[in-house]
Amino acid sequence: MQSVSLIRRAILTFALLSAALDTRAQQANLTLTAVPGIKVGHHTITERPTGCTVILVEAGATAGVDVRGAAPASAETDLLKPVNLVQQVYAISLSGGSAFGLDSRSGVMRYLDEKNIGFKAYGSINVPIVPAASLIDLNIGTNPRIRPTADCGYRAAQAASTAPVVEGNVGAGTGATVGKSAGSGRAMKAGIGSAAIRMPDGLIVAALVAVNAAGDVIDPATGKVIAGVRTADGKALADARALLTSGAVKQPARLGENTTLGVVATNAMLTKTQLTKVAEMAHDGFARAIFPSHTMGDGDTIFALATGAQSAPADVSRVGALAAQVVADAIVRAARQATGIPGYPAARDLK
Amino acid sequence: MQSVSLIRRAILTFALLSAALDTRAQQANLTLTAVPGIKVGHHTITERPTGCTVILVEAGATAGVDVRGAAPASAETDLLKPVNLVQQVYAISLSGGSAFGLDSRSGVMRYLDEKNIGFKAYGSINVPIVPAASLIDLNIGTNPRIRPTADCGYRAAQAASTAPVVEGNVGAGTGATVGKSAGSGRAMKAGIGSAAIRMPDGLIVAALVAVNAAGDVIDPATGKVIAGVRTADGKALADARALLTSGAVKQPARLGENTTLGVVATNAMLTKTQLTKVAEMAHDGFARAIFPSHTMGDGDTIFALATGAQSAPADVSRVGALAAQVVADAIVRAARQATGIPGYPAARDLK
Repeated sequence: MQSVSLIRRAILTFALLSAALDTRAQQANLTLTAVPGIKVGHHTITERPTGCTVILVEAGATAGVDVRGAAPASAETDLLKPVNLVQQVYAISLSGGSAFGLDSRSGVMRYLDEKNIGFKAYGSINVPIVPAASLIDLNIGTNPRIRPTADCGYRAAQAASTAPVVEGNVGAGTGATVGKSAGSGRAMKAGIGSAAIRMPDGLIVAALVAVNAAGDVIDPATGKVIAGVRTADGKALADARALLTSGAVKQPARLGENTTLGVVATNAMLTKTQLTKVAEMAHDGFARAIFPSHTMGDGDTIFALATGAQSAPADVSRVGALAAQVVADAIVRAARQATGIPGYPAARDLK
Repeated sequence: MQSVSLIRRAILTFALLSAALDTRAQQANLTLTAVPGIKVGHHTITERPTGCTVILVEAGATAGVDVRGAAPASAETDLLKPVNLVQQVYAISLSGGSAFGLDSRSGVMRYLDEKNIGFKAYGSINVPIVPAASLIDLNIGTNPRIRPTADCGYRAAQAASTAPVVEGNVGAGTGATVGKSAGSGRAMKAGIGSAAIRMPDGLIVAALVAVNAAGDVIDPATGKVIAGVRTADGKALADARALLTSGAVKQPARLGENTTLGVVATNAMLTKTQLTKVAEMAHDGFARAIFPSHTMGDGDTIFALATGAQSAPADVSRVGALAAQVVADAIVRAARQATGIPGYPAARDLK
């Protein structure tokens, strides 16, 4: 009896310790999956640097979007207009491959449909709601005909988990680059970044960004460039702000050759209309951490998701301002976590 | 004869010197009136800190607008939608006094109508096109019933000149304040700021901003707060970013009690649609120099004007990126040039 009791106590102690460690691990997760109910999965294609990233919310999340770049590739964004019917989405599909990459969305739909997750048309016929956006990376690697397909989306959904988001050259950010004010020859590598903030009252606001901007990545806390257009010798940062204001650069973005994609998630209770405003405010994070941003050559798009786990009504401006903050943090991380590929060094390579 | 020749030479020398000085003065003008064809006039009301500012373009300018705050007070912004008929405006009217202040627009219309400047309906009947926006300052001073009227707009138009824009507590910025994340008791004074950039190829992009934000004014070059919410003792800057992310502030903006107004002008040749994009990109200047920005409590609005004096086609992203830059510069100047009033110290008072 004594030994059984000891074993029981040991098991209990172990269980409590594990739970405490789990909680601590969860608390330490400062990525998009810090929001309970959000899973993230990447699929990275090996034949060419490209891929896709799926944000799964199997229980559904209220959603909004703001497309503020001038060269977007997107699907199911009309549905997200506040006046339109559907309130909840079950996934967001992000991909490389420009307009072709939107195909990865089909695989995410198939994955959700197999689980009967979606909007119930006619009361019972399942239609998974999966808004999507793609960034262009067709010039990275040697074969632009390799791009994310439905299979990519399906695999990314299969890989989705609540673990901290893997950052850098993965998923939709695999072929992402920044600093193209002087052409792709002086650009640098970026990728996926993610950040979250946990407030004392339980509010969580998190972001995931695939950074493929024409502009430079700036740390707004210091005003310093983290990654961006390089000097002619390729060895240092030239600073797009200096190039533009001196007149050295007259066309800061090549048309249709860039796009930064973001997803913001929160456990707040917000309506679709409020989330549209949150998505708008989140773009201030692009403005702060990317220069120039929202150009004619960027298809910048941000989706905002709310799981509604918090029962108290949320202040839209508070969530929006925090969203802008974590978006900026995620962009800086996307530059810092990326690794260089031939022709495109990363921030860590220039030190 | 000799003496006449000497006098002639002296006059000629004087004329050349004056012209050179004029050119230098004009070159040194780094405010909105750096753009040829743009005049700016303020009228400041003495009974209460409020007033109005008129941007006159008597030869007409193509225009666009982006209303990105959630609590705007505006007029003739529907007309500026790219699909709508009218292409040219003849003035922009900015005012304090919240929705009441839009009355100042009537005075600007009267001023232009007396000069027969406007859109010619039926081929000959003059309709001056004057988009307008107001900021709220009704809590500044003791009598909120004192607000800009048509008379204010008329006087501001009369006062308009090509001289460098007077900055600080003038015109529409007379009652402007910032840093209201912890209520008006810890806010600071801001006002009107203006900035311009002259490019080697002759492109000029300039901005005028009346800064009455809920947020703090940040210098994006350093990430430092210039003016904003103060510590409880009122003696130092608290930093709205720290207050928000620590959870000390849960409602970063009181609803309907703020608004920052901007006008961007350029000598570039741009269409109404292109100027709509320039106005959108110019809002990145708000995002960079104000934290938080674009809240539910801000009616943030930017008008973009192009005189079209440059004959070569302009790159929209270039003009938009420069516009964002001069808007941010103008915001920082609005904080630095303001002077304190009872209860609202200015940046210069905290040193």
